[in-house]
Amino acid sequence: MMRLHTHPASPFGRKVLVAAHELGLAAEIKVEHRKVSPVEPHPEVVADNPLGKLPTLVREDGTPLVDSRVICEYLDARAGGGRLHPEEPELRWRALMLQALADGMMEASVLARYETVLRPEALRWPAWLEHQKRKVARTLDRIEQQAQDLDPEAVHIGLIALACALGYLDFRFAEDGWRQGRPRLAAWFERFRTRPAMQATLPRDLVA
Amino acid sequence: MMRLHTHPASPFGRKVLVAAHELGLAAEIKVEHRKVSPVEPHPEVVADNPLGKLPTLVREDGTPLVDSRVICEYLDARAGGGRLHPEEPELRWRALMLQALADGMMEASVLARYETVLRPEALRWPAWLEHQKRKVARTLDRIEQQAQDLDPEAVHIGLIALACALGYLDFRFAEDGWRQGRPRLAAWFERFRTRPAMQATLPRDLVA
Repeated sequence: MMRLHTHPASPFGRKVLVAAHELGLAAEIKVEHRKVSPVEPHPEVVADNPLGKLPTLVREDGTPLVDSRVICEYLDARAGGGRLHPEEPELRWRALMLQALADGMMEASVLARYETVLRPEALRWPAWLEHQKRKVARTLDRIEQQAQDLDPEAVHIGLIALACALGYLDFRFAEDGWRQGRPRLAAWFERFRTRPAMQATLPRDLVA
Repeated sequence: MMRLHTHPASPFGRKVLVAAHELGLAAEIKVEHRKVSPVEPHPEVVADNPLGKLPTLVREDGTPLVDSRVICEYLDARAGGGRLHPEEPELRWRALMLQALADGMMEASVLARYETVLRPEALRWPAWLEHQKRKVARTLDRIEQQAQDLDPEAVHIGLIALACALGYLDFRFAEDGWRQGRPRLAAWFERFRTRPAMQATLPRDLVA
């Protein structure tokens, strides 16, 4: 049995779990929810990942794998290879590029969340928060313009990452209304989010 | 000719350029230095990468690729494949895991740099800075303990990323003395840093 250190609110952790579900590997992963704070490391996570970050996968032989991109590629290979990471070069670069944009939106969103929730109120910097949010908005706009990437039949790592980024925006920044002015992205997500892999991994906070 | 938006102080940009040199592709890339700030996007970078982040590669046909991991994998494939990203599975996971740890150190170091240089002094949060630095220190310690990864003859994307992370620490955090207590890592870097690809990409600030 593999073990996954993660948290049900983490968009990167969700990406790994959606990939595992899509690949039929979810039953081989024991999920261990860890409450980590970016200013207080979790000893059991640190034992496997010195960065202290989630998600961290631990293989049956005890070897850890980080981060979410590496874990997803590992799971794909374990399921036979090439299902979520296309092997045909141009399809591969498009999927990996979309994943990079989605990961970048998640990173910016998580930094925005830290700035509004974690950092002591007197030390918050509005320009930083604003800039993180604008990164996300520009990237959403670009994907909306290039909606040929949003093949309603396709499932690959770029689309999984995008769906997790959008799900995180709904979870933490619903008031920003990302669907506004982006009808193609909204329509694509409306369909993708009904996939069993997405429904099985809805973000939530851990109750103490 | 490919174009690369980057900055000579960026450790992620350096990773791409070291990879390009190692693969014999440096002459095919036009380097365009961009001064980007995390609170003020650069219009020419944003035109190719809505996240506004460096490095961003633009292929001959105008299609952009981000981020450094995707660009390095693309360059490796372009040079024939498998030279920097091993194809044998266990070697591949070790190289990608090391890259993920090194990228995590770079990210933490860049966040530490923002906290000490970019953010207005009154808004700095010592606990955040301390935590970023401890992530780096723990990861250096882990790599020092698992020094079997530090094959002095090998060159792969994990080792390139590690060398760029260490070079960035020397460049921005020399006073932290990362070599202290980590003789194997120091000895490995002392040798790796003499490679022409490393010497051709030494970090520096842009003079206005």
